[in-house]
Amino acid sequence: MNNSIQVPKPSSELLELATNIRQKAMLLGQADDRQRKDALVAMASALKENSEKIVDANKQDLKKAHDEGLTSSLMARLKLDAKKLIASVEGVAQVGELPDPLGLRQLHKELSTGLVLERVTVPLGVLGVIFEARPDAVIQIASLAIRSGNGAILKGGSEASLTNAAIMETLQKGLADSDIHPNSLGLLTTRQESLAMLRLDGLVDLIIPRGSNELVRFIQDNTRIPVLGHADGICHLYIDCDADLDQALKIAIDSKTQYPAACNAIETLLLHGDIAKSFLEKAIPVFESLGVRLLGDSISQSFGVSEPADQKDWSKEYLDLVLSIKVVANIDESIEHISEYGSRHTEAIVTNDQKAADKFLRAVDSSGVYHNCSTRFADGFRYGFGAEVGISTQTLPPRGPVGLEGLVTYRYILQGNGHIAGSFVSGESSFTHKDLPL
Amino acid sequence: MNNSIQVPKPSSELLELATNIRQKAMLLGQADDRQRKDALVAMASALKENSEKIVDANKQDLKKAHDEGLTSSLMARLKLDAKKLIASVEGVAQVGELPDPLGLRQLHKELSTGLVLERVTVPLGVLGVIFEARPDAVIQIASLAIRSGNGAILKGGSEASLTNAAIMETLQKGLADSDIHPNSLGLLTTRQESLAMLRLDGLVDLIIPRGSNELVRFIQDNTRIPVLGHADGICHLYIDCDADLDQALKIAIDSKTQYPAACNAIETLLLHGDIAKSFLEKAIPVFESLGVRLLGDSISQSFGVSEPADQKDWSKEYLDLVLSIKVVANIDESIEHISEYGSRHTEAIVTNDQKAADKFLRAVDSSGVYHNCSTRFADGFRYGFGAEVGISTQTLPPRGPVGLEGLVTYRYILQGNGHIAGSFVSGESSFTHKDLPL
Repeated sequence: MNNSIQVPKPSSELLELATNIRQKAMLLGQADDRQRKDALVAMASALKENSEKIVDANKQDLKKAHDEGLTSSLMARLKLDAKKLIASVEGVAQVGELPDPLGLRQLHKELSTGLVLERVTVPLGVLGVIFEARPDAVIQIASLAIRSGNGAILKGGSEASLTNAAIMETLQKGLADSDIHPNSLGLLTTRQESLAMLRLDGLVDLIIPRGSNELVRFIQDNTRIPVLGHADGICHLYIDCDADLDQALKIAIDSKTQYPAACNAIETLLLHGDIAKSFLEKAIPVFESLGVRLLGDSISQSFGVSEPADQKDWSKEYLDLVLSIKVVANIDESIEHISEYGSRHTEAIVTNDQKAADKFLRAVDSSGVYHNCSTRFADGFRYGFGAEVGISTQTLPPRGPVGLEGLVTYRYILQGNGHIAGSFVSGESSFTHKDLPL
Repeated sequence: MNNSIQVPKPSSELLELATNIRQKAMLLGQADDRQRKDALVAMASALKENSEKIVDANKQDLKKAHDEGLTSSLMARLKLDAKKLIASVEGVAQVGELPDPLGLRQLHKELSTGLVLERVTVPLGVLGVIFEARPDAVIQIASLAIRSGNGAILKGGSEASLTNAAIMETLQKGLADSDIHPNSLGLLTTRQESLAMLRLDGLVDLIIPRGSNELVRFIQDNTRIPVLGHADGICHLYIDCDADLDQALKIAIDSKTQYPAACNAIETLLLHGDIAKSFLEKAIPVFESLGVRLLGDSISQSFGVSEPADQKDWSKEYLDLVLSIKVVANIDESIEHISEYGSRHTEAIVTNDQKAADKFLRAVDSSGVYHNCSTRFADGFRYGFGAEVGISTQTLPPRGPVGLEGLVTYRYILQGNGHIAGSFVSGESSFTHKDLPL
């Protein structure tokens, strides 16, 4: 995936499919809480009934992938056995139980006698979801879309094409037994179509990429549709001079090794000069015993880090048991380093000095800033959102881990009885701007 | 302004300016409510003290514009006399009195014993503002930026260059008497720079265009930075079969004629077939007496509209005393028409049938949907926001009239005492997900 790839014009078939999904999504957006919940129940039932068919389709995909020599880690992601499928079906039920994100009144105000303004949450419209491998993502995204009243156009990896088709057919079968139109969901099958979807502004309201940094960056660079997600996750842990070093080490180990392939794992450790030596004395043997390769600047090398980190390391997301280490003179230098190299995902400080912590929490402009805890908590489920659409590192909301809330927007509703602006200009009427109960 | 214009690479001077503003904005973002309020007071004082200098600069701009044959409407926009300036200074004071949009806790939750999550509003960072003529916009935008803790890079029309420079110099002089660094604000002087600003992603967080539809569309098409605003405002008024026709006419007249150049004025009137004839009998003479040119589909022409509307009229923003009229069979057809031709700005229905109103309010996917009132209420001041940054027609929030709220984002702050994700995976710790008071 690189920038020489051309984004083609949407074919008439794709335009027809997207227009149809948009129309059905408009109806779905007007369905009530009960109808959307029932649709998820119907989707879950259909998945249970057709589980054998889906697992069989997956076996065929696996066989083909094996013949084509897919790596074992990709094979593991592709695999959808009965056990994984049951877990996915449970996920659908759980999404059904999440509080309705629609119809929430965020603002309620009398503008003038008899003229009342409300701001109410509504669905976005149609989601465009592009993901790699992991066919259970179809199930998860489809259930989040229906719960939030949005249509969805999905495109999965070609390795999983038979599985994805079997899942989509099953989900639509389920929807057919509910009040929600089966064509609220659609599946794209070719790469050309998924590229062309990037041009469907006006028909697709939000693109959700689930995959490699490269995939996300390519999409961000090639669409005018808003993209929910993040490319890099260059997270930092800064250990201040006033840190409890045992606590700091525990947090550093968890942040790096608990799941190094996650976007919220740290890539760089910043150490205050006053504690760098004593911290590294403790830390180096522990990291080595855990198989973590350490790369350091010259000062940390002088304290025992064996390999050098070069300039490029500060911007590298290893996604692996590799950690770059830099010694800084003070907290300001740590903040500057993060501002220069961070990806505005999640950064943490370990310190017993609340003033230093407050400074860090105020000055570091990432979607998550943490004090005395692991960066690995940056996750929708851990935040208690019940579901996660993705983690956004953009500046504007939604940012950080995004739950169902990121799939809705709002609309202003104003109701009067013949109110016109002219009477306010003439002075005949006047604004009261009185808050009403939500 | 068209798509053959090249967006140049930022010069090293522009990069230096923007980097400097970003650094100062980072400090500004940490200033407290009082400091930002005081800065606005200092800005207002400086404007008062230097009003003569600013008005003089404006006179020079006006002379040059006159010599170059600028149209009288542009001259009127360019003019900044003592009276207009005083009104602007009052605007600065009013923005200072608006409630602080920063530091608001939107979420407060115990994730586990001793591990507490907050979501708190923070500034975006740096705003890039590009506007045409109207030099008082510099004052308004600068005060909104400082109030919301954001730096700002501004570029005004070249006609107003002396005025803009005098204003910016004065505002920075004011800031120098406050805790906020004068270089939190910066002014660009060349067109090349303002084009190159579109490429400053990472340094500029939000672009706010204030000007023609063409300007906005060009910017939307040529930047990866989020753009707050709207290109077209194709607003509709639908008059249902159950409408009070006198009320409907009053609303139609206000929506079209109260200020036809506004984006929230209607361009198209949709009439239910059952009332089209009787409504037009009343309406045509009134619209004609107000100088409104009416263009109609064939049915409305058969009811007396003299000129034909062609296909292009349904997508045209006249910004003038021109109104296209179409007769529809029912409310569904009105909703379909809006879905096809609307710009998702503001649409209204006039009806005494609450069920029909509810259907319209639910089905029409615009940022504002109104019942029995004029579309001209779509405005931040009328909504009681105290200030308006612009009106956004995008799908994702912020949409509709945007106040200070649109200039902030949020950050997740998590504080623990050594919490690591591993203990939750091992089962040693567990999530409580308990809501705490906001």
